[in-house]
Amino acid sequence: MDNSSAALLKGFFKPRSVAIIGASREDKKVGFAVIDNLLKLGFKGKIYPVNPKADEILSVKSYASLTDLPKPVDLAVFAVPSKLIPPSIKDLPKIGIHHAVVISAGFKEIGESGAKVENDLVRAARESDVRIIGPNCLGIIDTFSSLNVSFSRGTPKRGGMSFFSQSGALGTAVLDWAIGENIGLAKFISLGNKADIGEIEALQMLAEDPETDVIIGYIEGVENGRRFIEVGREVSRKKPVLIMKAGRTKAGARAASSHTGTLAGSDAAYDAAFKQAGIIRVNTVEEFFDWAGAFSSKVLPENENICIVTNAGGPGIIATDAVERSRLKIASLDDGTIERLREKLPPTAALHNPVDVIGDADGKRYEDALGIVLEDKNVASVLVLLTPQSMTNDVEIAQIVTRIAKGNKKPIFTCFMGGPSVRKGTAIFADERIPHYNCPERAVRSMEAAHNYASYLKSERPKMPPQYDVDKASVARIFQAARKRNQLQIGETIARDVLTAYGFTLPKNRVAKTEEEAIKTAQEFGYPLVMKVVSPQIMHKSDAGGVRLNIHSEADLRKAFQDIMNTVKRRMPHAQVEGIDIQQMIVKGREIILGSSRDPQFGHLIMFGLGGVYVEVLKDVSFRVAPVTVGAARAMVQEIKTYLLLKGVRGEKPVDFDALYEAIFRLSQLVTDFPEIEELDINPIKLFPEDEKGAIALDARIALSVTSS
Amino acid sequence: MDNSSAALLKGFFKPRSVAIIGASREDKKVGFAVIDNLLKLGFKGKIYPVNPKADEILSVKSYASLTDLPKPVDLAVFAVPSKLIPPSIKDLPKIGIHHAVVISAGFKEIGESGAKVENDLVRAARESDVRIIGPNCLGIIDTFSSLNVSFSRGTPKRGGMSFFSQSGALGTAVLDWAIGENIGLAKFISLGNKADIGEIEALQMLAEDPETDVIIGYIEGVENGRRFIEVGREVSRKKPVLIMKAGRTKAGARAASSHTGTLAGSDAAYDAAFKQAGIIRVNTVEEFFDWAGAFSSKVLPENENICIVTNAGGPGIIATDAVERSRLKIASLDDGTIERLREKLPPTAALHNPVDVIGDADGKRYEDALGIVLEDKNVASVLVLLTPQSMTNDVEIAQIVTRIAKGNKKPIFTCFMGGPSVRKGTAIFADERIPHYNCPERAVRSMEAAHNYASYLKSERPKMPPQYDVDKASVARIFQAARKRNQLQIGETIARDVLTAYGFTLPKNRVAKTEEEAIKTAQEFGYPLVMKVVSPQIMHKSDAGGVRLNIHSEADLRKAFQDIMNTVKRRMPHAQVEGIDIQQMIVKGREIILGSSRDPQFGHLIMFGLGGVYVEVLKDVSFRVAPVTVGAARAMVQEIKTYLLLKGVRGEKPVDFDALYEAIFRLSQLVTDFPEIEELDINPIKLFPEDEKGAIALDARIALSVTSS
Repeated sequence: MDNSSAALLKGFFKPRSVAIIGASREDKKVGFAVIDNLLKLGFKGKIYPVNPKADEILSVKSYASLTDLPKPVDLAVFAVPSKLIPPSIKDLPKIGIHHAVVISAGFKEIGESGAKVENDLVRAARESDVRIIGPNCLGIIDTFSSLNVSFSRGTPKRGGMSFFSQSGALGTAVLDWAIGENIGLAKFISLGNKADIGEIEALQMLAEDPETDVIIGYIEGVENGRRFIEVGREVSRKKPVLIMKAGRTKAGARAASSHTGTLAGSDAAYDAAFKQAGIIRVNTVEEFFDWAGAFSSKVLPENENICIVTNAGGPGIIATDAVERSRLKIASLDDGTIERLREKLPPTAALHNPVDVIGDADGKRYEDALGIVLEDKNVASVLVLLTPQSMTNDVEIAQIVTRIAKGNKKPIFTCFMGGPSVRKGTAIFADERIPHYNCPERAVRSMEAAHNYASYLKSERPKMPPQYDVDKASVARIFQAARKRNQLQIGETIARDVLTAYGFTLPKNRVAKTEEEAIKTAQEFGYPLVMKVVSPQIMHKSDAGGVRLNIHSEADLRKAFQDIMNTVKRRMPHAQVEGIDIQQMIVKGREIILGSSRDPQFGHLIMFGLGGVYVEVLKDVSFRVAPVTVGAARAMVQEIKTYLLLKGVRGEKPVDFDALYEAIFRLSQLVTDFPEIEELDINPIKLFPEDEKGAIALDARIALSVTSS
Repeated sequence: MDNSSAALLKGFFKPRSVAIIGASREDKKVGFAVIDNLLKLGFKGKIYPVNPKADEILSVKSYASLTDLPKPVDLAVFAVPSKLIPPSIKDLPKIGIHHAVVISAGFKEIGESGAKVENDLVRAARESDVRIIGPNCLGIIDTFSSLNVSFSRGTPKRGGMSFFSQSGALGTAVLDWAIGENIGLAKFISLGNKADIGEIEALQMLAEDPETDVIIGYIEGVENGRRFIEVGREVSRKKPVLIMKAGRTKAGARAASSHTGTLAGSDAAYDAAFKQAGIIRVNTVEEFFDWAGAFSSKVLPENENICIVTNAGGPGIIATDAVERSRLKIASLDDGTIERLREKLPPTAALHNPVDVIGDADGKRYEDALGIVLEDKNVASVLVLLTPQSMTNDVEIAQIVTRIAKGNKKPIFTCFMGGPSVRKGTAIFADERIPHYNCPERAVRSMEAAHNYASYLKSERPKMPPQYDVDKASVARIFQAARKRNQLQIGETIARDVLTAYGFTLPKNRVAKTEEEAIKTAQEFGYPLVMKVVSPQIMHKSDAGGVRLNIHSEADLRKAFQDIMNTVKRRMPHAQVEGIDIQQMIVKGREIILGSSRDPQFGHLIMFGLGGVYVEVLKDVSFRVAPVTVGAARAMVQEIKTYLLLKGVRGEKPVDFDALYEAIFRLSQLVTDFPEIEELDINPIKLFPEDEKGAIALDARIALSVTSS
């Protein structure tokens, strides 16, 4: 069977005939609502109600069973008790059906017994070459083929947005909202339990769909995080994808043993994944339509410079404030533009952006002002504001703005503020798919979303970093050995070896058994030094009195050596001391932290931040899903609030960013090579200034997962 | 004349008769609209059109001039060319009028000529004991006295919100919006140019008004910042005050010479002032009605714990996410509550908060669930969510929720999501003043606003800190002397004396003329020390090689003394060296910055933050308007993101907060005593741990204003 997105799209949304199994004459039943919706929308194909007890339903001839139907049938819609469905699936291919929408509930969502039925359903579908949307869903809609096989209350008009939803109830509310706001939809997919078709194939279908300009989706989770990112990346280059992910729960329950683990709630993973996939994350239900509306005119702004044309000062100021809070900028108009505005507008008009055409402005005045600012090369998009003043004719102005917007390559957004006095004007915008909002802030935020997407389209495609030549075998041996010892928490000493094998630079070190050996090592390494006792019995070296920092001279070293030996002997008389580890002490450089933790959906996340209080108190860190691309590494570094500290403040030199990126890539490679790494902190890494180059990892810890798979 | 708020309120909003000067028969004219609005609303008092050319307007007898009117008349409304108004004002008292609304434009807003007319207007009003709203405004409305003397398009229904606006156009839009959304208003005041009545008297009037439950206002600036805070403080204790301040411009143009000056844009002043006045700052036009609606039921939540009752999972998760982003909390329900819910709800219902009453819930099910959770002592407010599913009867459920909400002391908020399918239910909430929203996020943010206000009402009233015993005379002399020298920038040396006079602790210091004097001083102070050259010719001591830090021993000191002398002599051979300042070097303690800058509206702001990168890079600072109260000092300290660093992280002790507060109060007293201080930075102050106590100011600079007044 052809399982391509195009074939799926055709199979589900462009059927020539639909069988409704469980069609009903009772108007409260889903099996009635589906036929009612099909008839009301004027579906052009054949409708085959299946109900052993009815001759006809809503004047449509009804059939006793699936096998009685005239062949071929394209789409099956199930609205019968769950247990009846798996056996029926096997009948579908016999009459040519390979696509089924299972609306019925009574599956996984009701617990164990339902989960069993759902397994049967999936098996039956696989065996019979049938693809399924649902179960436990609202159904699907295609306004262009007049197909509404759902129990929605009505159908929105045709439009360029398509919506998929993991929540049926939210689907109902959003469809109802779209109807109320006169917003057009192309397709609606209620994913339900996602037994077969999930968000990934939904995305792929809508990406293929020429009737869909913008994809919006509501999800509560994804099944395969990596694949989601891959597909998202492809789709988001073709059309804007806006997704709301609900359930921003904190890491909470899961006990994390590292900084990274503590900071990486599941939401950090979704945030990172959306960024890496080019998906626009929508935070509120309102933003769905607000932002999707920003793309309905199909023209994107060239850059961040916007011009505001208003008939009142106050709203102009409000919009300007909103622009200042966004990534947009108030365009600075050309002198020529201002001169031309001066010629056309009354003397009291404000000629600088925001351009105030004054309270008594009619359509002509708006037309003049718009025409002039649109020609200014400094203006990339325009926000038209209107308040209903005594002379204001909202309809005339809306018509003129619409005409100008239709022929223009610069997007025009509108905000007619008020209620009844602007309703007709706003309705024109809704009909003509001109982005329209009822308050300036929402308009500006939507313009920002359009700008962000336009910038994304201009950005480089993801590029993988170099694959480094590393000693993977050594690390495999180290982990294996640790497992043999039942050691899942790997501390500094062994973690050093892992990092070294993956090409990280570490401070020089050597274990000295005697004071004289220590002195010799010190002469080779140079001061300052750090000294740490080495003993298999001592886990917490500081507590045992086994650590000395700031060793600046031979005298310091001798004293420290004796001190450590004596203190350790006193505090832990039974510990077997193998010697003292003499390490270079790295004083200079900026402290950063790199880490990784494993997310159940997306796999390893890579975390980056400045060390110390910046990570512990300010939690100023960024995440990306591994493997981290070149662009993602750059973005995650620039994203933290303390980025300026890396670039250098108060005359400091910038850090060696190349060394930082390399460390991120090497870490990304390490966790990709070893999925068994549960959590990992390299904390701190000292990053040297760009003219000295390099980065040295001072400390690290690794937690392995219980199973090595 | 009685100028009390009560008298003003009565004079403007409860007139027995209204004269409209400039009444017109042309339906496009303001003078027509005002009479039309009065008639349409059914104003019960007398209406006196004044127009020399008309006998009657809209069937109301018209008069040729003001002096022809039957006495007494209570309110005058002007809609004639501006120049005609000042002379007419003088006629008003003759017929008993002491309150006038000047709608006409042509005043300050058109430039110099208009400003002159506005001055004449104000003078005439003062001389004639007439109070004025406007000019250049939309007019005023009182729905309860059926008074609409404005040229608004229609009048909202009666309700508990009152709105004043500095922008006429925004006023029109908001009124129109209120009409469209069926939101009730008590009073509307268009402030116009604020020639006489401004935002402060508007606030006072509405505070007095028994018909006003919530005050909302739009301002672009205030005239008298201090008074605004004082009045705001009084009014906000009586009823919630929500204000939108537009024009969040950055400090921008003004060249600031200090950190504080750079960071204190005008918006920081408004933010601080609103906090100190207990005013809720509204950021978007939507929040106006959303948040004001939160107070319309007149019951406030006891605490932050909310319970969500929903008929669908998805929206429940969305609402929970919104709660997690707010200061609210998801209430943890009592075991007893859950047991009772289990008895009443179907087996598939979710019994833990969010309580999911399942898609087929009818009114009875909502009633049961609501009744049970409202009795739980852990629940302070409830959010009722509804999506229109196949069985959902929005009207029945809205009626039941309304009935329960009306009799309850815990506030109930509602969110019926969708369009046409929930419109009737939502209309019931609008009619009955039950807070209602169309998306969960807006509902939750409004609940948060209600919670914030409830917390504010419970907070202590502002308490002034102790007045410290300081040497004000010395500082006056220091500033006078500096002015005599034409020195407006005061550096460390003199700033030390100012701080000392105001009781700040500074490191011990003494100027040593010779190396031997320096040694003696060092023996007295103890090491480590800082050494700085003292010379009237050397402003930039470091550049001249005149500074040494970290002097740890007599040897260090001798070497540094000679070094400084030699280097300075070489680099600045003509400088007259008076000696070397020997200072204690304060190593321990947490660095903070305190500062002050003068805002044109509010006077001195006090700034606080952690020193170094926290202020320079993260801009993590807080502001309050001086004088800073005890509560404001506490709040501004807790408000910064790095507050945790002061409380102590990683086993550190907390800082001496009392010393910090005292430093804030002393600084507040200093700038209050000396308004001529333009900017001031104390940077850094070292704050000691609580067990060592104290704070030492290490460096400071002061900029005086050009004039000493």
